[in-house]
Order: sequence, then structure tokens, then C-alpha cells
Amino acid sequence: MYDADVIRVPMASPGDVSGIAALFDAGKLAPEHVRAVFAQTEGDGYARGYASQSVEILLSERLGWPRSRVNAEIPFLMIGGTAGIMCPHWNLFVRRPAEGKARPRGKRLALGVRTSRVLAPEEYGKVRMVRVVADTTRAAMREAGIASARDVHCVEVKCPAMTPARIQDAQRRGKRVVNTNPAAASSMAKGASALGVALALGEVSRGKLTDAAICRDWALHSEVASTSAGGEQVACRVVVIGNSRQSVSDLVAGHGVMRDQLDLEGASRAFRSAGLQVKDGSVVPAGRRRVAAVFVNAGADFAPGVRGRRHTMHSDFLWSYSGWQAKAVAHAVVSAMVGDTLLLASAGAEHQGPPGANLICVIARAA
Amino acid sequence: MYDADVIRVPMASPGDVSGIAALFDAGKLAPEHVRAVFAQTEGDGYARGYASQSVEILLSERLGWPRSRVNAEIPFLMIGGTAGIMCPHWNLFVRRPAEGKARPRGKRLALGVRTSRVLAPEEYGKVRMVRVVADTTRAAMREAGIASARDVHCVEVKCPAMTPARIQDAQRRGKRVVNTNPAAASSMAKGASALGVALALGEVSRGKLTDAAICRDWALHSEVASTSAGGEQVACRVVVIGNSRQSVSDLVAGHGVMRDQLDLEGASRAFRSAGLQVKDGSVVPAGRRRVAAVFVNAGADFAPGVRGRRHTMHSDFLWSYSGWQAKAVAHAVVSAMVGDTLLLASAGAEHQGPPGANLICVIARAA
Amino acid sequence: MYDADVIRVPMASPGDVSGIAALFDAGKLAPEHVRAVFAQTEGDGYARGYASQSVEILLSERLGWPRSRVNAEIPFLMIGGTAGIMCPHWNLFVRRPAEGKARPRGKRLALGVRTSRVLAPEEYGKVRMVRVVADTTRAAMREAGIASARDVHCVEVKCPAMTPARIQDAQRRGKRVVNTNPAAASSMAKGASALGVALALGEVSRGKLTDAAICRDWALHSEVASTSAGGEQVACRVVVIGNSRQSVSDLVAGHGVMRDQLDLEGASRAFRSAGLQVKDGSVVPAGRRRVAAVFVNAGADFAPGVRGRRHTMHSDFLWSYSGWQAKAVAHAVVSAMVGDTLLLASAGAEHQGPPGANLICVIARAA
Amino acid sequence: MYDADVIRVPMASPGDVSGIAALFDAGKLAPEHVRAVFAQTEGDGYARGYASQSVEILLSERLGWPRSRVNAEIPFLMIGGTAGIMCPHWNLFVRRPAEGKARPRGKRLALGVRTSRVLAPEEYGKVRMVRVVADTTRAAMREAGIASARDVHCVEVKCPAMTPARIQDAQRRGKRVVNTNPAAASSMAKGASALGVALALGEVSRGKLTDAAICRDWALHSEVASTSAGGEQVACRVVVIGNSRQSVSDLVAGHGVMRDQLDLEGASRAFRSAGLQVKDGSVVPAGRRRVAAVFVNAGADFAPGVRGRRHTMHSDFLWSYSGWQAKAVAHAVVSAMVGDTLLLASAGAEHQGPPGANLICVIARAA
Repeated sequence: MYDADVIRVPMASPGDVSGIAALFDAGKLAPEHVRAVFAQTEGDGYARGYASQSVEILLSERLGWPRSRVNAEIPFLMIGGTAGIMCPHWNLFVRRPAEGKARPRGKRLALGVRTSRVLAPEEYGKVRMVRVVADTTRAAMREAGIASARDVHCVEVKCPAMTPARIQDAQRRGKRVVNTNPAAASSMAKGASALGVALALGEVSRGKLTDAAICRDWALHSEVASTSAGGEQVACRVVVIGNSRQSVSDLVAGHGVMRDQLDLEGASRAFRSAGLQVKDGSVVPAGRRRVAAVFVNAGADFAPGVRGRRHTMHSDFLWSYSGWQAKAVAHAVVSAMVGDTLLLASAGAEHQGPPGANLICVIARAA
Repeated sequence: MYDADVIRVPMASPGDVSGIAALFDAGKLAPEHVRAVFAQTEGDGYARGYASQSVEILLSERLGWPRSRVNAEIPFLMIGGTAGIMCPHWNLFVRRPAEGKARPRGKRLALGVRTSRVLAPEEYGKVRMVRVVADTTRAAMREAGIASARDVHCVEVKCPAMTPARIQDAQRRGKRVVNTNPAAASSMAKGASALGVALALGEVSRGKLTDAAICRDWALHSEVASTSAGGEQVACRVVVIGNSRQSVSDLVAGHGVMRDQLDLEGASRAFRSAGLQVKDGSVVPAGRRRVAAVFVNAGADFAPGVRGRRHTMHSDFLWSYSGWQAKAVAHAVVSAMVGDTLLLASAGAEHQGPPGANLICVIARAA
Repeated sequence: MYDADVIRVPMASPGDVSGIAALFDAGKLAPEHVRAVFAQTEGDGYARGYASQSVEILLSERLGWPRSRVNAEIPFLMIGGTAGIMCPHWNLFVRRPAEGKARPRGKRLALGVRTSRVLAPEEYGKVRMVRVVADTTRAAMREAGIASARDVHCVEVKCPAMTPARIQDAQRRGKRVVNTNPAAASSMAKGASALGVALALGEVSRGKLTDAAICRDWALHSEVASTSAGGEQVACRVVVIGNSRQSVSDLVAGHGVMRDQLDLEGASRAFRSAGLQVKDGSVVPAGRRRVAAVFVNAGADFAPGVRGRRHTMHSDFLWSYSGWQAKAVAHAVVSAMVGDTLLLASAGAEHQGPPGANLICVIARAA
Repeated sequence: MYDADVIRVPMASPGDVSGIAALFDAGKLAPEHVRAVFAQTEGDGYARGYASQSVEILLSERLGWPRSRVNAEIPFLMIGGTAGIMCPHWNLFVRRPAEGKARPRGKRLALGVRTSRVLAPEEYGKVRMVRVVADTTRAAMREAGIASARDVHCVEVKCPAMTPARIQDAQRRGKRVVNTNPAAASSMAKGASALGVALALGEVSRGKLTDAAICRDWALHSEVASTSAGGEQVACRVVVIGNSRQSVSDLVAGHGVMRDQLDLEGASRAFRSAGLQVKDGSVVPAGRRRVAAVFVNAGADFAPGVRGRRHTMHSDFLWSYSGWQAKAVAHAVVSAMVGDTLLLASAGAEHQGPPGANLICVIARAA
């Protein structure tokens, strides 16, 4: 039995941890209960590094741990690049003792956080990585107290990115990496991670998982996996979000799939799955106040168009930011439905839902 | 009595006029009935110029007119810059003789197209420009056969932009331009144009219109004006869209205002205003098939945030494209409602609705 | 015997052909003597299209030819994307009858312009394309009256780019393209074109030219080839620039190679090769006035750094414009040497000089 | 009597301080001798913040000081945004006791580092700021042991930037800021800082310095001031670089002015001023090995063109990065002269040299 919480904190800039510090100062949150940090940061990769360093220093000071221990024990999942009406913010994943809190009816928000063993660059993007992520996901489910895959509503994975230095390291040791283009290899690492989640949850069968299928056979995918890669990671960091009878949380999780950017019914299902009422295409006002967090994993840039119409995300001058555009669009549509822009949107489509889909996880106060 | 139509034609690139040529070739549209062209083009200002030149050449060839006459008689309103899931396309504004078509019940789509006198650079962005646009709007209403301002649902204006050469020209003649920064002066020209529409439609009273109020007193605005500026223009090109008993069109126009990017109810009103049914936050399938065109004038970049949350459109690295981001967001939300991305989105907020609002015009087949 | 000329004309925007028209109007240039157009245009690919269409219309009107004939007979080589202190301009390649002009001492500027047969998409980037370009280069040399490869100082090639539509076309016919990624395949087409020049000039031996060597074996390269690809091309357009006794031109051509961005001595050799004196690292004032045109093919983005120092052209946020940065840098260094920024800089390194090198062609009035 | 040094350290990314740590670890540099840090960082403003935080943490750990004391005592002057062949690196300004080092002949590198009093937002960009910077510059000269303005070769100033919050703060207190546009006001703060240096060095007379002259009368300027603004600063941080008999440094400083981007003679003067020989437009090989640091303050984006030719830095799509382009161009030209790209280039032209000029400071080992 444990209590779980997700706390959203706006940030004024990538280095702004004052909102988190204020929670600590006010006694509303104990630093030792922060199990993972999931952030929407403005700016590019350097801003992500800045944000990570800032929260690492804060936790190091408050916990009295060296920074290396903070880094080892508390995964930071930083999603950079905001556009449109996206609003930078922190999501703190919190677990604390139940401490006599009454057992609620039904299953409540369950969180499991696990880090895999260190992976060698030559394992990235291959079936070996799929298996490692599957094992880590199962371990995180156990920690969360989730027995059935049906109770998992989102799995966030931060896996290692391929870098030129890692390619050279593998080659020096006579090993073959999945692709010598770092971006392509990193994409395959994200794909393998998503398939790892799918394997753990029974969404794909082990027999279909071959090296050749990774980032090729898009029929294989997870409907709850959201993966990103970082050059600073050497292992896979996994956060499982679902519901469990072992949790006394005030919150419940749910999810849904938008099959394309216009699929409002898919988005509605995500909100209903978390116990919220949707009317006239929107979450009703009473439900809006109960929303604790929304995570949207956007896939528009993975499809050449929408319902037969082309878009210009890849052909136009700004094509290098296609993922940012995909996030901005999915974020806007879901924000309009819930009347708030404090939603986290990530981009990533490798085996994360069918091509062009958005995956949505909603966490809300139980009725 | 006349017939009016709006025809949407997808374009494969800024120079692609093959879809329009195909309509001419198939006898579905006579070149002489094209009264104005309103296009959503990908790319930057050079792409807009390319698109204009391409359609100008096509019309010149088909009408047997020199290019200068095409340019003088047929306004081209090119909106550049697509992002997100926006889809480049042409909107052809068409007027043809009624030719015995039966008079329908009620008012139908009415179009009026007028070009103002040439304006001197020192008039841009001032009350004199407001009056010129108001006069031109009234003339276009008369041409459309619209007697009441309530029957106007959209007024598109392309006004001259300020350029360094025009500033020098004015200064050589001892005249004072409204601002020596071309971008700021052009913004004021757009604001003055919007107030010209507002004056013609009685949305603001003449007494409040002073030079000092332009781009300062945002309480003054039009709910149907959409204005943009082009360095190639020397006069204001005005297209009035509304409904009239003098039209035998199959279409009707309507409009609505989204007070912010999340205001789904405001968007619903626009669709209902054109006779379409909205259910569960979406236009019903039968209604979707009746949609002829949707124009969204986006204003998100004019507000520092949405419902108390900040956005990063101005502070972030990509700030120079803030208008593109505003368009992408507004376009996505409205597209989701109608299940199609072939909507035209422009950005521009100077006296075009209250700050941060989107103005929406819907043209649909009458029931 | 013929006369040859290269005329530089600044342009105020991608659609500005007024400077060319003025030459025609003043009788300084006859439209029928324009054999090819080589332009430095600001903006992106749409701006290139706009510039092409603009000059095509002008030549169509002045020659009384349909646009299709202009396009077939007069190659347009448009280099888009200006940065730094680059200055957009046209270079007109002109050939006219000698008309009694006295035969000068020595060899003078020789121009040959040829278009290859139409290539199928499955030929792009392969040895078959190498051979086609070699044949076309030889034909252009014959037309120019150049017998020896040593008299060739620059070969500009515009080859077809691979596009998604062309890949589909090949696949429908059961043919295999060199790479299903359009950018990668286009890069290989540029590489094959450069090797075609190298083969024609004897810079590489036929025996080393295998499909596998293209865009892999960088030891194979030309020191005078400059190639770019365009989706609008179906064949290879080749312009050979050199010196010949059959020319009565007032100009002579020369070339040199900067082995990296700091190699001022390499740039000096280019100017000296065209008969200009370089002193204290600069072309002497009297020589500057004799410069008719300078073409710089920049390669900085093809090397990970310069003399052991890294650069950020690929890793940084702006990496998608790495070629533009390479052009800006090479252009600045060479401009400083000649005291003028009206130089044309292109980017492209596939077998065009050793990796990281700049190729420089100088055309100047003979002493 | 003191010793002074400038140490260049390449950085692999904005957070990479490993090269500095290695100097500390090897005993080559004592942390307490670092008096200021001047860095060329890749990326945007977030990367600058990341770099500042990284070096602040390192110095805090090594000095045993709280981060606030590091920040108060050691100015960080971070120049973000690399392009072209620019190479990110740290410049450490070092002062240490002379410790029996023999007094050299002539004047040697002298460094003075001072921080002004805190300035109120309403003072930014006005004559009051000019005076504060002038006083701080004189204090830094005294600390450096420089008596004559002729011995000053570079003054780097980091002044506070205007921000929306600071504007609101001033307005709440009933004070008037110099411009309500933060960018315009920050530009004026940089201009006032440069004029402060000019006043201290006698380059402009006090009588000409009025509020109206700031960022208007470009005839007033300094030939050694290089200023930038940061929202994190509340006071002006000033580093004076010159030569003094009180220094026993192995280095000497010099400077020169390039009146435009092609002025190689101006760049040559800077190298010669630091005792280096320039031949054939380049620093001779023996001289190249003596170069300790080069700082280039680029101004190309402040002029509409170069020697009568336009550039596209402001008109083109990428105009928001015009300063980056100016830096890339100036950096390339000077790098070619010295055969190395490890030069620091900043952009900023407000009263820093005549419009369009580059200011160059060279620090080299004395012969």
C-alpha cells in the first residue's frame, strides 16, 4: 500500500525550479518522495540539459545527495521544443507511504519507476534492447503493484541515443551498430523501446519480434508506450503509469488513441477512461477541475497527410522541426477539449501507436 | 441577380496551378468568372510571389489579357506560411450570371470585390486609410447586393505594406510616415484597414477613430475583418463575403468568433451560422459534405498566453514565426471540428477581433 | 571562331529581372546570345522556382519562343540560399558571332552548353549517370572549342534530383533506385555528376568508377566540377567554362582549390590562374576592376571541422542550413580578397574537390 | 606588479567544463586566479544559461564558495550563437601574483575587472548609464595599472538587458523606461555601455552625450568597446584589456578596426598592434604560434550592404539570426588570416566602432 501523485508545476524558463522549491519549502512535497521528473521544456537540446542540471542541483541540495546519486535514482524525462500554445512545465511523479490513508474503492493511480542495466551501443535498436525494456517494464509494473496489462495506461521510456562517440566505441570493439547514422540509430532505439513495452504488455507476440521488424513493420506497436532518446542516458529509464488496488491515491489514470489529428472521439475516450465526462466535445467544467495531468504523444509528422490532404511538415523550409509542429497541433486539439494548455506533448511515432496516431494519457482525481 | 461560388483547389507547390487549369479545361469554370483568388501557400514571401505570378500567367493566357490587366482587375490575396497540418490550396471567388437559375428561398452567398484608389505611403496606418477602406467596403457591399451590415460575414483586405523605398519616397516629398520601421508601419496599415471595415459595418463609431487609436485602442475592432499587407500593393483590395437576396448561389455564408484558442463554442457558432449542425463538438457528417470553404483568422500570437498560461511563441528561438504557430494551432482546432484540413488560416490581429481571438468564416451549401 | 562573355547583373529580389531587361532594351545584349543563366538567389527552393519562372517569361517574350522552348534550350542553374554578406545576382553566359573581332593572342574564355538525354530515376547516382555526364561534358567541350582538359576551369552541372514521385515511378516499373531516401539519392546524383566531369577530364580513371565508389570513395573527385540537383530537371544540363583559341573573347578563365576554409594561398592561385596579380593577400586594385565573375563551390559542411577545430554546422539548431553556412564562410573569405561581394557561392561537396575544399573559378578581362 | 594570462579552452558542448577542470587538476591554473570568463557558446540563450551554470558550479566546488559569491565576484560574459566555422570555447582571464617573475621590457598584458553599482531599469540606455559605465571602466583601468587610454585595447562590457518584468517594475514605481520594447531598450543599454567606455577613454566628449544621442548619433563611438546585454545581470560587468608596466605577463594586447567586412588591412593592423608580423595577407607561421586569443566584435548586420552591394541578412527568411551571420563572416575572414578558428566573435554595433565595422583585439606572446 502506497500513495501516488502527479504534480504539475509551471516553469518560467528552462532553469526555473522555483516552483518545485516552493513546494518543498511549504512542506507540500518531501524531496525524498519525488520518484521521477517529466518535463516539457521550451528550447532545444541545450535547454533540456539546462533544465536537467537545474533540477538535479535542487534535488541534490534538498536530499543531501551527490548529483550522481540523484541522476542514478531519479529519472529525468525531458521533452524539449515547445510551439503553438504549449506551456513549459514540470510533472513530478510522487510516491509516498500510505500512512493510514483509507483504502479507496477501486483501483487508483499506480506508479513504477525502474532503470534497466547499461546497454552497449551495439544493442541499441535491436531485439536485445526490446527484451531489456520488456523486463524493465515488467519490473516497474511489479513495483507499481499492477498485475494486469489492462491496468497500464502509459509507459514513458527514456532510452540511450546513438552518438558518433558510441558508434566509434562499438567499432573499436569490433561490434556492429544498427545504423551508422546517429539519428537513424536513435530512431530505432526508440522503436525497440516501444516494442519492449508492447512485448511486456502482450500487445505484440514474441515470435514477430525480429531485428528486421524494428522500424519496418508498423503493424507492431504499443498503444501506451511513449519513448524518447537522450545522449546522456546509458540505460533505459522506465516509468509505468496505471491503476492498482495497492494504491491509496486520490487519482486514477486512463488512456485513449487518436487515430489521426482530427479524431476527437479518440481523445474523448482518453478522458472518459479516467472517469471524466465529455459533453459537446469537451470535458465538462466539473471534470476539468479534476484533471491532474495529460500526456499527449503526437504522431502527425509520421504520416504524409491527414485524411487524404497533404501537410508541409517535411517539405517546407521548417521541416527540421516537424516533430515540434506535430506536438503543437496535437496539443492544441486536446487543450481545447479540456480548456487548459498545461498538457505535456511529446513527439515520437516509432511503434508508438499506428502511424500518424496520437496516444493520450489522462490522470484525474477520482470522482 | 447573379450566381456566386467559392471553389477550393489543392495545390502541390506554390507554382502549381494545374488544378485551376483543369477546371477551365473541363468547362467547369470560365476564366472570366473568377473575381478574386485567395490562397494558402506554403513557404515564405518569395513563395507567395511565385504563386501570384503563376496564377497571373494562367489567367493572362486564358483570358487573353496582358498580365497588368489581370493584376488590376483580379485581386490576389496570398497567405504564405503553412505549419502543422495546414494544407496549401486555392480559393477561387466566382461570380457568374444567374442565367435563369431559380431564385432560392432566403439569402445566399454574396460577393463584392473592389479596389480602392492608390494610397500614398504617408496615408498608411492613419485615419485617412481607415476612411478609404470604409468607402471601398461599402462599394463592395453594394456590388454584392448586401444592404445590411448584419449580412456581412467576412471582409478580406489586402492593403499596401510599408517598405524602405516607400518611406524614402514620402520623406523626399517632405511627408511623414506613421512609423519609420517598415514592419511597425505595415502593422498599422493592417490595423487601419480592419478599422475601415469596422467603420463601414458600424462596429465602431466615427468619433472614436483618431490616428492615436490605431494599434493602441484594442477595444475598437471588427469581428469580420481579416487584413494582410503586401509590398506589391499600391491600393487596398477588398473582398466582401456575405449573404444577399440578389444571389442565386447554392451557398450561404456565416461567421463566429473564438475568443481564445480553446473556445470551441465560438467555433461551433460559426458553423451553425452557416446552417450546419454541430453535435458532440463536431460538424455532423452530412454537414461536413456541405462545407465549401472555411477561413480562420488566427490571433494567438497577439496574446501573451491562453487562459492564464504562458506560451513561448515570442520568447523562443522560433519567435519570428509566431504568426505561423498561431495559424497552425487555430487551424488544427477548427479542422478537428469539421474533419478536414483544407481550411485557410491567416494570422493578423490588429483590430481584427479582440486580442487573442480567432475570426471564423464558413461557407456551405444551403440545406 | 566566336565571342564569349559572362555578365553579372544584381537582382533586387528573386523575381527581379529588370536588370536583364535593361541590357536588352539598351541593346547591350541580344536575347538570342544568352546561352545559359547561372543565378545566386536569396530564399529557399520556392524562390528558386520564382526566379526561374521570371527569367523564363522574360526570355520567352523577348525571343518570341514558347516557355517550353526557352526551358529546353537555355539551362537555368539556380543556386538558392544566401547568408552572410552574399549578394543575389544573375550571371549570364553569352556566346555571339566573332563578327570580325580581331583574333587575340592566346586562349580566351570558351563556353560550351549541352543537355544530356533524359535519365530514368533508376539511373540517378549510378555509373550510368557518370557516363552520360562524361559524354555531355565532352560534347560541351567540343562546342566550346576546347581540346585539352587542362583548358577547362569549371564545369557547372544541374542534374535531376530524386523525388518521391520518381521513386514511385521506378518502383511501379520494377526498377531499383539507388536510395529510397530522396535526399540521399539526390546527393548521389550530384556525386555521379561530378564523377562524370572527372571522367571526361581524365581526373579519374574509368576502371575505378563502380556504383559502390559513388559517394564512398572520396579520393575520386574533380577539381573543377560544381554540381547541383533540381526536381524540375529530367536531364543533366552542363556548362563547360575554359579557354580556347577559337574564342575572341576579352575574357580568360582560371581556377584554384582552397583545401580548407583558411587556405588563402589556394584562393590566390585561382586569381593568378586568371591572370590577376595578388599582393598582400589581395587582388591588386587594377586587377579587381578586371574581374568579370567569380564562382565559389564551398565544401566546409562536408568536413567535421577545420584544422583540428570542430564547428557546429551540423550539431547546432540551425544544422539544416549547413550548406548555407558553408557558402557564407567561403564567400566572405574570397570576397575579402577581391574587395567585392558579387561572387556566386554554391555548396556541394560530393566528389567536387577533396572533402572540405572550396573550388574557385575566376573569369577576368585579359591583360 | 602582477602576472596576467588569457587561456583558451575548447568546449565540446555548452555544459562541458572538463577542459577547465583538467587545468585545475593538473595544477596549471589555480581557481582563485580566474578573474573573469569570456565564452563563445553554441546554441541560443538557454545554452548560454547552461554554460554559465556549469562553470559557476565548477568554480563553486573548486573555490569552496557558494554559487552566489562566484556570480558576484567573477563576471561571466557568455556570447551565444555560433555559425559557419566558429568553434565554441572558453577564454579564462587570469591574474596571479608576480612572484619574483622578472620585470619584462615594455608594457605587458594588463587586466582589470570591475562591477558597477546596481542600475535601475529606468536608467538603462540613458546618460546615467553612460556615466556609471565610464566610472567602472576607469576603476578597472586603475586596477589593471593602466594610466593612459592609449594602452587600452579592448573593453568587454556585459550590461543588464531590459525585460518585460523590469519594465513593469519601473512602471509600478512611476518611472519611465527608455523604450517599452525590451529588445529596443536592451539595444540602447548596449549603446549606452559602449558610450561609457568611449567617455572613459576620451573617444567622445562629455558635452555631446545626451539621452537623444544614444543609438542615434553614430558618429559617437568607441573603437575598443564590445558590449552585450543579459537579463540575468543587474549591474554592468566590465573587463578592461590593455598593456601596463605593472604587468609581468608573457603576453601583450593590441587592436585594430576593420571598417567593413572586406577590410583586410584593418585586420592586419590588429595583429601588428600585438607585435605579430603579417605577410601576404596572413600572420606568419612563427607569429601564429604566439597567438593567445583573438576577439572579433562584428558589425556587418548594422550596415545595409558592403561596398555598395546589398546583403540579405535582414530581408531574408533567416533575418532573426542576422547577428549570427555577421559573426560567422567576420570570424571566417579573421580566422583565414591567422590559420585557426579558435577566435571569439561577438555581434554588436551600437556605438561599437563606426556602423558596419568589426573591432578586433589580439593577445599574443611577446617576442
